[in-house]
Amino acid sequence: MAKREQQSAAPVPAGIYPEGSAWIDGTIVPLAEARIPITDWGFTRSDVTYDVVHVWKGSFFRLDDHIARFQASMAGLLLAVPLTGADIARILHDCVRASGLRDAYVAMICTRGTPAPGSPRHPAYCRNRFWAFVTPFAWVIPPEVQERGAHLIIAKTPRIPPECVDPTIKNYHWGDLTRALFEARDAGADNAILLDHDGYVTEGPGFNVFAVIDGTVVTPDRGALEGITRKSVLELCDELGIPARIGRITRQQLLDADEVFTATTAGGVMPVSRVDGRIYNNDRPGPISLRLKERYWQKHDEGWHATPVDYA
Amino acid sequence: MAKREQQSAAPVPAGIYPEGSAWIDGTIVPLAEARIPITDWGFTRSDVTYDVVHVWKGSFFRLDDHIARFQASMAGLLLAVPLTGADIARILHDCVRASGLRDAYVAMICTRGTPAPGSPRHPAYCRNRFWAFVTPFAWVIPPEVQERGAHLIIAKTPRIPPECVDPTIKNYHWGDLTRALFEARDAGADNAILLDHDGYVTEGPGFNVFAVIDGTVVTPDRGALEGITRKSVLELCDELGIPARIGRITRQQLLDADEVFTATTAGGVMPVSRVDGRIYNNDRPGPISLRLKERYWQKHDEGWHATPVDYA
Repeated sequence: MAKREQQSAAPVPAGIYPEGSAWIDGTIVPLAEARIPITDWGFTRSDVTYDVVHVWKGSFFRLDDHIARFQASMAGLLLAVPLTGADIARILHDCVRASGLRDAYVAMICTRGTPAPGSPRHPAYCRNRFWAFVTPFAWVIPPEVQERGAHLIIAKTPRIPPECVDPTIKNYHWGDLTRALFEARDAGADNAILLDHDGYVTEGPGFNVFAVIDGTVVTPDRGALEGITRKSVLELCDELGIPARIGRITRQQLLDADEVFTATTAGGVMPVSRVDGRIYNNDRPGPISLRLKERYWQKHDEGWHATPVDYA
Repeated sequence: MAKREQQSAAPVPAGIYPEGSAWIDGTIVPLAEARIPITDWGFTRSDVTYDVVHVWKGSFFRLDDHIARFQASMAGLLLAVPLTGADIARILHDCVRASGLRDAYVAMICTRGTPAPGSPRHPAYCRNRFWAFVTPFAWVIPPEVQERGAHLIIAKTPRIPPECVDPTIKNYHWGDLTRALFEARDAGADNAILLDHDGYVTEGPGFNVFAVIDGTVVTPDRGALEGITRKSVLELCDELGIPARIGRITRQQLLDADEVFTATTAGGVMPVSRVDGRIYNNDRPGPISLRLKERYWQKHDEGWHATPVDYA
């Protein structure tokens, strides 16, 4: 990767791209103009990994955790770019500064690229590429839906098995998740949860799933992303004295749970009030879900895992 | 989609982009400049379908079949663009003409796009987009490897199950196929064949698989793309009086077969001489594979299923 891709040519003026910005070939551009080559195997083979960190009230949340996971995901797919974690952090700061956004969704992406000229058509011989983009903060489940509690279905489409595509490496293989979103829409629901081939709960399109079973918060031990918001939830449970564990959840245990909630970078802790025909807590978010949701955002205000964006 | 995306503004000069061309937002551009939005869910959710037709000696091969399958794939994913099959054909002719290429690989693509402003973040509310690009003819297995017969492995990575992502709808979910390509490289092989979770042969990265068992050509009945070159192979078998059928193939049957070969648009009929430790036909392409390969290309010269490109 050329040196010019590793650093901006000049300091980026703050707030010039309020609808979003992106890092494309070493330059910060408006998001509306941000494009990748149609021939990049990141597109034509979905041979790509990514991570997303959010900015809330002017600070990144768990920036180091997200960059560390992104680097681990790249290593897992044998992808590499000549950028250190500090380089990536600086690019993300620059992109957010260019947007001027105080609440934002910040994506870092590494694509396989294309084979170098004259080299074999094999992923081992490609020039991998780094990209980033910033959008205004987006909610996987809109705030008004979170207020009443989301209505979910258990999708008929099973999650892609971990032996085929490792869900702990963030990936864009959303074919099953997209099918599940159409199933949810057809059922008049907000979103969906997918099971694995053995009938255990995995995750939903872009979020981890939690069930409160006999007073304990439980989240799946496999078939799902090891979410950083999930990690935050487990830390909050520890702080609040709520028992929590990582383990298997059957479809029936999910339906019979006291509460269900979801968690994601793009929304935090999001309560659920219905799954299939079941109605939890008289059709409102449950008390443990609400305590975790409130504490999650309260701790943001207290500077928990916060890295102030360099807007200067 | 705006009218301008449905037809070129002006006739495209022939041969101006000899390294490849693309149809981007209704305009034909050089392939090296062809890009798609980084935010398109076709990229960030791999929510996309495509098809590929080849041009050989100035003619498309089975153009109508490829366009019909592409339209069926779009329908299967609930994707739609305001282009008839004739519109798509004309765009592909225009792109090939711009490249001037006589032997080419021609891709047509439909991405989910992004949600229309103000609409829900759901695939049902996106503006779907059509793209196309042309590259010089590329071989999945290089001609010199085809000459000696390809060396394949049976990958440890299983193919993504059809219940998760339908392999008969051409898709870019290549995570399992990419893993298999790295397995092949680690084993010193040219390429890989993937099994399903029950141990039956499915397909390889971009090609269908055939085994000659007791004189009959057999190709898998499920877990694989219903390839158009596969269809051509079955037609050639019929013409040549070679028994052929679509059915299950176990790992053991593949290893014990008399011959193995593969088929794809990007290479035609491609003989295999080794799978894992097995060596077929004294390490050379087998006689039935060779007959089919020769007849496949011979029939191209005879105008079989050919649509001459409009280069004028």
